[in-house]
Amino acid sequence: SPTPLIIAGPCVLETEDVALKIGQFMKEVAEKAGFLYCFKASFDKANRTSISSYRGPGLEKGLKILDTIKKELNCPVLSDIHEPYQAEVCKGVLDCIQIPAFLSRQTDLIVAAGNTGLPVNIKKGQFMAPWDMKHSVKKVESTGNNAIMLTERGTQFGYNNLVVDMRSIPLMKQLGVKVIFDATHSVQLPGGGDGCSSGQREFAPLLARAAFCAGADGVFLEVHVDPEKALCDGPNSLYLHQAEKLLMDLKKINEIRREFVDVAS
Amino acid sequence: SPTPLIIAGPCVLETEDVALKIGQFMKEVAEKAGFLYCFKASFDKANRTSISSYRGPGLEKGLKILDTIKKELNCPVLSDIHEPYQAEVCKGVLDCIQIPAFLSRQTDLIVAAGNTGLPVNIKKGQFMAPWDMKHSVKKVESTGNNAIMLTERGTQFGYNNLVVDMRSIPLMKQLGVKVIFDATHSVQLPGGGDGCSSGQREFAPLLARAAFCAGADGVFLEVHVDPEKALCDGPNSLYLHQAEKLLMDLKKINEIRREFVDVAS
Amino acid sequence: SPTPLIIAGPCVLETEDVALKIGQFMKEVAEKAGFLYCFKASFDKANRTSISSYRGPGLEKGLKILDTIKKELNCPVLSDIHEPYQAEVCKGVLDCIQIPAFLSRQTDLIVAAGNTGLPVNIKKGQFMAPWDMKHSVKKVESTGNNAIMLTERGTQFGYNNLVVDMRSIPLMKQLGVKVIFDATHSVQLPGGGDGCSSGQREFAPLLARAAFCAGADGVFLEVHVDPEKALCDGPNSLYLHQAEKLLMDLKKINEIRREFVDVAS
Amino acid sequence: SPTPLIIAGPCVLETEDVALKIGQFMKEVAEKAGFLYCFKASFDKANRTSISSYRGPGLEKGLKILDTIKKELNCPVLSDIHEPYQAEVCKGVLDCIQIPAFLSRQTDLIVAAGNTGLPVNIKKGQFMAPWDMKHSVKKVESTGNNAIMLTERGTQFGYNNLVVDMRSIPLMKQLGVKVIFDATHSVQLPGGGDGCSSGQREFAPLLARAAFCAGADGVFLEVHVDPEKALCDGPNSLYLHQAEKLLMDLKKINEIRREFVDVAS
Repeated sequence: SPTPLIIAGPCVLETEDVALKIGQFMKEVAEKAGFLYCFKASFDKANRTSISSYRGPGLEKGLKILDTIKKELNCPVLSDIHEPYQAEVCKGVLDCIQIPAFLSRQTDLIVAAGNTGLPVNIKKGQFMAPWDMKHSVKKVESTGNNAIMLTERGTQFGYNNLVVDMRSIPLMKQLGVKVIFDATHSVQLPGGGDGCSSGQREFAPLLARAAFCAGADGVFLEVHVDPEKALCDGPNSLYLHQAEKLLMDLKKINEIRREFVDVAS
Repeated sequence: SPTPLIIAGPCVLETEDVALKIGQFMKEVAEKAGFLYCFKASFDKANRTSISSYRGPGLEKGLKILDTIKKELNCPVLSDIHEPYQAEVCKGVLDCIQIPAFLSRQTDLIVAAGNTGLPVNIKKGQFMAPWDMKHSVKKVESTGNNAIMLTERGTQFGYNNLVVDMRSIPLMKQLGVKVIFDATHSVQLPGGGDGCSSGQREFAPLLARAAFCAGADGVFLEVHVDPEKALCDGPNSLYLHQAEKLLMDLKKINEIRREFVDVAS
Repeated sequence: SPTPLIIAGPCVLETEDVALKIGQFMKEVAEKAGFLYCFKASFDKANRTSISSYRGPGLEKGLKILDTIKKELNCPVLSDIHEPYQAEVCKGVLDCIQIPAFLSRQTDLIVAAGNTGLPVNIKKGQFMAPWDMKHSVKKVESTGNNAIMLTERGTQFGYNNLVVDMRSIPLMKQLGVKVIFDATHSVQLPGGGDGCSSGQREFAPLLARAAFCAGADGVFLEVHVDPEKALCDGPNSLYLHQAEKLLMDLKKINEIRREFVDVAS
Repeated sequence: SPTPLIIAGPCVLETEDVALKIGQFMKEVAEKAGFLYCFKASFDKANRTSISSYRGPGLEKGLKILDTIKKELNCPVLSDIHEPYQAEVCKGVLDCIQIPAFLSRQTDLIVAAGNTGLPVNIKKGQFMAPWDMKHSVKKVESTGNNAIMLTERGTQFGYNNLVVDMRSIPLMKQLGVKVIFDATHSVQLPGGGDGCSSGQREFAPLLARAAFCAGADGVFLEVHVDPEKALCDGPNSLYLHQAEKLLMDLKKINEIRREFVDVAS
């Protein structure tokens, strides 16, 4: 669909109440902007920097919360998996399965996701060239599933920093898939000495607008009612009012970009 | 001035005729877009990859051509210097002196440029962090000259490649200067085995729009009547019609960006 | 042990015969050099670039071959796991469990490896700063297992290239673990258009010697009787005679390095 | 000559007395190690980060000090130039002219240095691929001068950091020139907020040994009687006793490396 997609929610599921509040708000904002909305949250953060970090409610409880959100808000829900067996378990609830960036080359995981028949969103590894994502795309296609999205979320740039190469958007679109821009993970400062990734929330809207201007089919955002108290990725998560302002800006860009997107590719 | 600036012209001066043709075209297009126009061309490419490459007409002949353009087109002209003594020589003709990226830390050169009292445009070195440009800014300011622009032109990303970090635009604006985005040098593929830099012209408009969306105060473009035959930087130079289309796109972005630029900083 | 460790073998298990031939040769060479030898091969390459690449004999068959090698050659054997459940299955055969670089932050996998009580060798992710590996180390330690090695295998440097930062060796040694240098993966050229990583075998000995000189406790090598026909990583695998020459060089460096290693840290 | 070269001295000329003390010490140490010694110091640091940093005694006074050192110590002296006219002025005193890394593509400067007939040492730009240095080499050769050295001094790696790619040593040797490794500039942390580059002195010996092991024809070191009080590059300069220990280590590596250098190329 040419209508842009907004994938947004908290980084990780906390309480059902918080998730519903965030989802409710984002759904309304997305509608106001004329965009499709998909709720997003992880049930398990399997690769947190530190072993003592909060990981989430786990698969079973997490799916239950996601199912509630899906029904209450009447919107599609997305979550990420970390082991192949989880794909089948998630099938009944999720509308889209996401492959984390570090796992963007794990064949069994991608094939398991593809086999569900659900749309698969693969985050581009921080260590991957845009053109090399074609191999991950082919791994999904090998299952007969062609509903594929690729998500740009920044590329490693020296130690503890990421850079967004805007060329990756048209380059990945050339692979025949939808390209999403993950604005909040792209402003992470990975690692660091204190056991969790830091982030530069202040740059997320700017990068989202630039990427949208560069032709992204959708935007991925981590938002929270209170980022300072979020149990994961607080420093790069947006406040609800920031996400709302951003979507209104993207709406304006969307109205004018149609004619110049073609020049880019 | 809040009116965006378009610095554009051939990479290097060839004949007066070609320069005039390009300048005439770009001036009209800039006016149509409502932007300020400044003609740009080098009189000497002092750092060409290969010793056998065309370098330009030299200082004296070059200034003569620039002076003609300035008078014929009634527009400001910009060129770059490579040795301190050139600053004073150029003073009577140029409206803006540019410091090349490789030379962005050369104290004497920057001070000589500052001493002319003319606006100074320093290209950010491919090896510089945006925040470190403050030292180059201070070198100009030490001469009592506060008319300073910084130009983003890509950062080294592995060998033979550049990446544009859009965060650099707000970061350099925080230094209290105007920030220009050089769309055509940013798509260079530096070096290579054949003695000249190659380029990806196809990404220049996309990056220019994204940077404009990210708050750039102006755009720098190399344009040519026939890029395939340009004596320098052909592979990344834009055709006249591409530059025209791009300026019309930037005009539209400019109309909507005022309200979202503030969110970025 | 202050005796250097040589982990070497084919990238992936092919036939038992080939594995034995390589292991036999390397064991003798290691003994000649006065180094400890550990056989290495993967039973499953779970993250090959392309879905159509050879992946190996699988867990069950692979462990059988590894068990044969262990008994026939009377030497320790190492292999890598990709899902947590594999750790327990491998426990009876392996002497050391390896965590692949892309998976170097996956908490469950590292904890499962740690829980076996076997030494764990974590490859540093291509996207990780040396100091950030302390979090992966702590994940192993959380199981009460302190037999930990970290392996340097190159860091992403632009697209499709890796660079070895020799500072990472003393930096990771400061974490209180043994540091191995993987000479053959460090010369991979990741990705590329043709569905498999290319490599620069010619630089592997040079980097191994430099890393050994910089204090590496051991060296990891992929070797093959016929790299041109290897089913995985042929372009960066060493010929047997190259591996032999390299070990003789490392022996000489080992004899003189004791006194200068301390200066490094 | 197959005898390794040690280029060492203070970053910038301070007093004649300090320069002589450092040169005297390093000459004796180099002789003890069986290496050729060349004194090195800048007369003008033309690209200091901040405009308020100490730049040196200037061309005239600096050459006088260098001339004294040359005669008193009876050893060759090297310094770097920043503008073409300086080459001819330096000709009577210097034994080797150095081109700074940022200026490694400036055609006029390199040609002027070549025209003196003196050996020319070009530092590889932090933004250059090793193979692209062939163009700078050709610029010297265009003057009929074939006495050329290239110096590795680290490559930009993200912001405010450098990495040494040891592959550059054999790659640049393939251009038919001598390759020097600059151990102390390679551990600079360029830029930074406080107006001068910081550095990691502790890694300089380790990198020097690794580079020597990788085939470097010589080593370049900044040394000072009191690095904490050095007027330039103190944080990456070595204490005299550290430089002495390092040369003794390099001597040992030199004795064994002859046979393995060939394997590298």
